[in-house]
Amino acid sequence: MSTSPAGTGRLYGVGVGPGDPELLTLKAARIIDGADVVAYFAKEGRRSNARTVVAGRLAGKRELPLAYPVTTEVHRHDDAYRAAIGGFYKEAAASVAALLDEGLTVAVLSEGDPLFYGSYMHLHCRLASRYSTEVVPGVTGMSGGWSAAGAPIAQGDDVMTILPGTLDEADLSARLAGSDAAVIMKLGRNLPKVRRALANAGCLDRAIYVERATTEGALTMRLSDKEDDDAPYFSLVLVPGWEALR
Amino acid sequence: MSTSPAGTGRLYGVGVGPGDPELLTLKAARIIDGADVVAYFAKEGRRSNARTVVAGRLAGKRELPLAYPVTTEVHRHDDAYRAAIGGFYKEAAASVAALLDEGLTVAVLSEGDPLFYGSYMHLHCRLASRYSTEVVPGVTGMSGGWSAAGAPIAQGDDVMTILPGTLDEADLSARLAGSDAAVIMKLGRNLPKVRRALANAGCLDRAIYVERATTEGALTMRLSDKEDDDAPYFSLVLVPGWEALR
Repeated sequence: MSTSPAGTGRLYGVGVGPGDPELLTLKAARIIDGADVVAYFAKEGRRSNARTVVAGRLAGKRELPLAYPVTTEVHRHDDAYRAAIGGFYKEAAASVAALLDEGLTVAVLSEGDPLFYGSYMHLHCRLASRYSTEVVPGVTGMSGGWSAAGAPIAQGDDVMTILPGTLDEADLSARLAGSDAAVIMKLGRNLPKVRRALANAGCLDRAIYVERATTEGALTMRLSDKEDDDAPYFSLVLVPGWEALR
Repeated sequence: MSTSPAGTGRLYGVGVGPGDPELLTLKAARIIDGADVVAYFAKEGRRSNARTVVAGRLAGKRELPLAYPVTTEVHRHDDAYRAAIGGFYKEAAASVAALLDEGLTVAVLSEGDPLFYGSYMHLHCRLASRYSTEVVPGVTGMSGGWSAAGAPIAQGDDVMTILPGTLDEADLSARLAGSDAAVIMKLGRNLPKVRRALANAGCLDRAIYVERATTEGALTMRLSDKEDDDAPYFSLVLVPGWEALR
């Protein structure tokens, strides 16, 4: 969306892709290079993954880190938690708005794609109606994952489902059984449950585990070959859809 | 996936993104610029959309068009049809293999992302085990769509479903009702049925129609504001997931 109220700066939500700095788009590179300020979310005391992807482009650039007080994820069904973190997003939006009011161009970085499970949307929904705004799509982490694994994920009339590993086992099992292809995110300590759900749905044998795809230390393997249940929060399980290709 | 048998050329499956030439990744640009041959699928007598995206980079480049005899899509449940088009893919793979055997680097272009509903996978599954192969992920058409619409598609623990408009009305309705967020592809003449399914599932009011996102002539609107049922095959309906953002 591109809107243009007069007399203010310009807001960009910029997807930086799954991790490899070369998977930035030409447009994202141009917007970042030309921005007055580069902003990004990060957990308190931790590096921003999105910033790491483009660190090589930021020499001398003004930066605005937006440090989460507690965690990066909002559970949509938990109203109390949502209200608490809402205060943080409101404050972050006000920080960005102050720069836009000065007439500056602000590029907010997102890992992957800004509007696909990204934090940028919390700024977007607060600022896009008031400031000239544009979203630059990026390569998602899941695309980086199945490309690294060389696994065709879906084709033709496949139904593909994107599932958080936080769902309960019965729900996960039913949704996996009803899909041709699936991606399971938010593994972390949910991995043992995810394995059981895949087995219940009859697709454990074709599940692929992917960790840090497109970056150094990338790991892809059949999930059935993974002996431990250690899984970083941003690892993925892929269930490729098309039988003819397996 | 990157494998390296000795003494042959190198195969790249390269995602060129949703349409805007600036949404090419830096890596895709480098691979295309350095390739000996650029290959792409196209319907007989029609231009390749993927080629159009990168046309400005192809001056003097050797090209290999792979012209479909009939259509671009295979219905996975139709064995007879699948067998017929299988002959074409086998022939296409042989054409690419002949170039690889000469020691040439071949970049096969895909709109969007190569392994996400893309034709490149038909070459990948026939060639990746025999030749040094790498897949370069791209920005998908759906990311281009929700970015153009400024519509946050999914967040937190949302379940997101990618559905072909070819499903029957009852199946579409049930899957929409059971998802937080959805993308419906393959609209074409399925649009009236898709509207009924969205209404059945109670999400017609928040559905967004997107056509040719990120290219000239792009169109985004609330589906309920669209008065006709004309929809190109590659248009999309988006059902954003997160209530707080609407």
